[in-house]
Order: sequence, then structure tokens, then C-alpha cells
Amino acid sequence: MDKPQPFDHVPEVLDEQACLFLLQSRDLGRIAFNIEGREEIFPVNYAVEGRIIVFRTAPGTKLKAVPNLPLAFEVDSWDPKLAVGWSVVVKGEAEEISTNPGRTAEHLRRTLARPAAPGERWHWLAIMPSEISGRRFHVPTPRGERT
Amino acid sequence: MDKPQPFDHVPEVLDEQACLFLLQSRDLGRIAFNIEGREEIFPVNYAVEGRIIVFRTAPGTKLKAVPNLPLAFEVDSWDPKLAVGWSVVVKGEAEEISTNPGRTAEHLRRTLARPAAPGERWHWLAIMPSEISGRRFHVPTPRGERT
Repeated sequence: MDKPQPFDHVPEVLDEQACLFLLQSRDLGRIAFNIEGREEIFPVNYAVEGRIIVFRTAPGTKLKAVPNLPLAFEVDSWDPKLAVGWSVVVKGEAEEISTNPGRTAEHLRRTLARPAAPGERWHWLAIMPSEISGRRFHVPTPRGERT
Repeated sequence: MDKPQPFDHVPEVLDEQACLFLLQSRDLGRIAFNIEGREEIFPVNYAVEGRIIVFRTAPGTKLKAVPNLPLAFEVDSWDPKLAVGWSVVVKGEAEEISTNPGRTAEHLRRTLARPAAPGERWHWLAIMPSEISGRRFHVPTPRGERT
């Protein structure tokens, strides 16, 4: 008789320091926002500077509408062998820092090492987090029978 | 003198068949929605049945509020060696199928093979896509100097 399996999904809540450490270990995340009732989500390349998430977006995307919208930014990682993953979610608003001449904006732009080629109008955005949360979790293998 | 580097980020647009194929190759995605002005994003375990995305969510999360909200669901993959990735975004609304007795709902629940243990109140949701889009892209390595 099978015992009821206690799913080991009760996620472990991570503190902000652990979240920032994990954020620094990756460079691809997803940004989500709602614009005029439509939900959008995009993968973005990012870097972390202190608590600030800096990302840049290709020209012509809807991401230029992002400043002043409530954003959620997510990064996760998943180890298929251990079936253990983590996710960190940052909430806040983004500020465009593409052209600010100030020292902080320049420093933030430099956190993404590879410079944009001349003439490319990349948008640089910085999320000032109002909230950073994270969890470490065990994910079941729903396709266990198929893999 | 450095030539201006044409970023090779002009993403390749994927058709729906390619998107579905890629969706079927993974089982962890992220669901984003906006509830009462707050933006939320969660990693979810999912399966695909035809064009329908089925996912289940732990008890007690905000995801129970999801039905009837505009959702964006994203799956991506990233090959660090090739610096090539893809992302697929599904938009639509989710319908709760946790308790529907109908044949379709039962079939959809079965697409996630591992059953919930008795007494666990997992929510099962199905996204009926209004839109499926995807791109394959090259991501620069902003931390190239550091790795």
C-alpha cells in the first residue's frame, strides 16, 4: 500500500541576502508587467548592483513602456538531478537610465560589461526594488513516466 | 579600430508549431498576472496537451486568484556555450480544472503524471491560449569578463 506521499514542496523562504547572492549568480531573468490590461512577460539579460537590478532591452520592444509600471522580475534555477530549484522575485518600478549623465547611471550601465555598439538605441532600465523575496523548492517530476 | 559590432540579437520569430514543440520539451515555466495593481510572477510546473497548458499550484498561493485574469506564461531555455536561447510566451486566461468531473478535465489532470496525495488541495489550472509566440535569440555575455 502506498503511503500518502508528503510532497516535499513546502518551499524554504530565503532572506534578502540569499536572494541577492542567487540573483548575482545568474544573468537571464524575466520581467512581467501589465500594460493597458494586457499581461506581458519578457526574458531580459540583467546585472545586479547592490540591490538594484539593471537590464537592457532591445530597441522597439514594449519594454520602453515599462518605467512607472509595477514590475515583477523573476530569476530561477533548477537542478534536474536533485529536482531542487529556487526562484527569486523582485518587485518595484524601473527607471530608465539609458541617457542619464549622472555618475550613478553611468556606473549602473557599466555593470553590464559589454557596451552597446554606436548607434544602437538600447534601453537601460534599473529596478529599484520595493520587495525582494525568494524560495527554494522541490519540484515533482510530472513527466517521470515519460523521461 | 573596432568595427561597430552588430549585435546578433535580432531574434528569430518562431511559428506556433515550433513554440509547441519547445513547450513540450520543458516542464518548468513562469506565470505572470496583475492582481489589484500588483504584479505577480511565479514559477510553475506544467504540461502541454495540444495547445493547452496545464499547471498545478500549491495550496494557499495567490494563484487561486488567477482564473479570469489575463495571464502571460513563459518558458525559456538558454545554452551558455552557444549563448543561444529561446523563449515562448503563451497568453490567455486560465480555467480551474481541479474538480471538474468532465472527461476533458480528467484527461488534462492526467497529463501531469504524478498524482497529488490524498487530502492535498492542489489547484489545477488550464490555460486556453489566445496567443502563442516565441523567439530564438542570441544573448550577449555581459559578464564575460568575470566568468
